[in-house]
Amino acid sequence: MNFQLAEAVEVLERTPQSLESLLSGLSEGWLHCNEGEGTWTVTEVIDHLIESEKTNWIPRLEMILQDGERTPFPPFDRFSHLKEPSETSIEQKLLSFQTLRSENISKLKELVQPELHLELTGTHPAFGVVKLSELLATWVVHDLTHMAQIVRVMAVRYRTDVGPWKEYLGILNKENRNR
Amino acid sequence: MNFQLAEAVEVLERTPQSLESLLSGLSEGWLHCNEGEGTWTVTEVIDHLIESEKTNWIPRLEMILQDGERTPFPPFDRFSHLKEPSETSIEQKLLSFQTLRSENISKLKELVQPELHLELTGTHPAFGVVKLSELLATWVVHDLTHMAQIVRVMAVRYRTDVGPWKEYLGILNKENRNR
Repeated sequence: MNFQLAEAVEVLERTPQSLESLLSGLSEGWLHCNEGEGTWTVTEVIDHLIESEKTNWIPRLEMILQDGERTPFPPFDRFSHLKEPSETSIEQKLLSFQTLRSENISKLKELVQPELHLELTGTHPAFGVVKLSELLATWVVHDLTHMAQIVRVMAVRYRTDVGPWKEYLGILNKENRNR
Repeated sequence: MNFQLAEAVEVLERTPQSLESLLSGLSEGWLHCNEGEGTWTVTEVIDHLIESEKTNWIPRLEMILQDGERTPFPPFDRFSHLKEPSETSIEQKLLSFQTLRSENISKLKELVQPELHLELTGTHPAFGVVKLSELLATWVVHDLTHMAQIVRVMAVRYRTDVGPWKEYLGILNKENRNR
């Protein structure tokens, strides 16, 4: 086990600014490309991160603290952000994500005392019993997964443009891409 | 073909600041973990990006402009940064990368007129004839590949800590990781 709350917070705090630096002001070509039918654009990934801040991490954390294993978490719909495509700019979306994330980190720090709470358990609708520390580690890895997805979606746009260098660039050659 | 010089520059310009936002001030645990023997830490990836700014992109670009296909590029040693591990902090390394990248983007803008030069060709020591536009697209995808690598190395640190959520997090489950 490597999980420590303070180190996890370091990553959670940095994600919005990293995405802002990477994406703010980019051309439409970068923001609206995807990896093929049924895959997400960069903009859709940000919508998903916003949705997760609203309905996934802190609500589940609060359920563990309040109810323990008694009530299973409501399932999280990983596709709900695709149902109502929004018209707001990438810069507005990045700002929403930043704001929600700051609020959620404040709540996290207020609610969780690492020496008391990390081993508390709740019930996941698919997995059964899960620990609070596992939920928080997943929050971190979820950020990193979607950052990896964003840069991969952008890289794939140049799959043909790199010519023979494709052979050296593993990111362009995977058949089974992870979300 | 999707390549356009102005869009490529958008990405090249953003990489240093994105990495700065993600990595500056992180604990040693994040900076010095790797994915197992023979794999790179986050810090080693930054060393490699610095080395590439010095010896890869602009020197090859200049060879195409000056010599065309006549002289093959000298091979780029992808492991040279591992030979002399440096003691400087991640913040100093990120600053070096930022500085080198800014200089290189200035040179790129000065040297390349997209309507005249993108189709010029040079000789790659392994691939043979390559186009200037392919070199530049590769520079962009190389940035994105190494950003993907950095977030993956960090994610893998929590492979066990996420508990049963591992199943949903594809980034933790790949056997063949791309560099």
